[in-house]
Amino acid sequence: MNLIEALHWRYATKKMNGEAVPQEKVDKIIEAARLAPTSSGLQPFNVIVITDQELKTQIAAIANNQSQVVDCSHLLVFAAWDNYTEERIRTVFSRMNAERGLPDEATENYVQSLLALYLNRSAEENHHHAAKQAYIGFGLSIAQAAELEVDATPMEGFDNEKLDVLLGLEKYHLKSTTILPLGYRDAAGDWLINLKKVRKPVENFVINLD
Amino acid sequence: MNLIEALHWRYATKKMNGEAVPQEKVDKIIEAARLAPTSSGLQPFNVIVITDQELKTQIAAIANNQSQVVDCSHLLVFAAWDNYTEERIRTVFSRMNAERGLPDEATENYVQSLLALYLNRSAEENHHHAAKQAYIGFGLSIAQAAELEVDATPMEGFDNEKLDVLLGLEKYHLKSTTILPLGYRDAAGDWLINLKKVRKPVENFVINLD
Repeated sequence: MNLIEALHWRYATKKMNGEAVPQEKVDKIIEAARLAPTSSGLQPFNVIVITDQELKTQIAAIANNQSQVVDCSHLLVFAAWDNYTEERIRTVFSRMNAERGLPDEATENYVQSLLALYLNRSAEENHHHAAKQAYIGFGLSIAQAAELEVDATPMEGFDNEKLDVLLGLEKYHLKSTTILPLGYRDAAGDWLINLKKVRKPVENFVINLD
Repeated sequence: MNLIEALHWRYATKKMNGEAVPQEKVDKIIEAARLAPTSSGLQPFNVIVITDQELKTQIAAIANNQSQVVDCSHLLVFAAWDNYTEERIRTVFSRMNAERGLPDEATENYVQSLLALYLNRSAEENHHHAAKQAYIGFGLSIAQAAELEVDATPMEGFDNEKLDVLLGLEKYHLKSTTILPLGYRDAAGDWLINLKKVRKPVENFVINLD
């Protein structure tokens, strides 16, 4: 299944059947997010994996009781850096240089330009920027799930602050951005499954400026 | 090429050779963004296509003179709604209901909940939210380009406000978020092409909370 086919196949599954997604497929779905391009290669987000039924139930309670949060086999939480810091930025470039066999001086001017940019912005603005990078990874995980015929429901409808507290994200200096239950559709119980996928027509989506 | 292979194949091309990408491939790259999932299906972004060499040159001048902006065959600009409005939200649901053969009453309660949410937020906060949806589409276009072996360079490094003025985006009630030059690598002139792709190790990227 190519990407366009996968995007037609998928839909925001409303009812899952509880069947478990094999770990190998979950790993690929996360790998797509790990390989996502991000601004300056900083990868300012993590993916949190939750399979514990009790924890999923607690999360559902702060996610409008959406059943997929409980009926999925794996719940992925995409969480972005709460801020950019010198330590975080330097860690990325040190790893990159080490793996490329380059000295840290090779990227020092570029690192300085990033520090000048990010350390002069508010934590809130930096988190917005980091969250946008997480959305790139989020989209690629959704696409990878579809390619593997794993159902997934992209969700923003939860209480971010309560989820951050519940998962103890502050100690990781992360804030939740989106969640993605993975599982398999319960076709008989899903009101959305037979409704047509609707998108803005191409002529309303594309603006040709030439 | 599956998605993981495509994500390994791609890199942020630094030098393009000027060869034109066939329109059929450009269309698929845009189609991936059009099919992207977005919050409540609102699709609060557009893709602007630029092929005019003079306009590309003007854009390069406000994009750190990055050569790909000029040497690409098609420059895509991802631009998100400057705000959510009742008219925009109702237009989406009217289309959806019409295509699904449902009356607008079917979604009225849901629309009311969206209006209560978005119309009470600042334009700035709403634009941040819309931009995040655009990043999902941006990621899928990058993946689709790679699957078709078209090179692309995801870019944030430009002056958003100047680009908005240059392209006249205010009249569309849009603000630019990212740009994506499409073309083909000039392997001999590209300093990045032979450097190893580096990502955070899986054990630093995934947090297992069970």
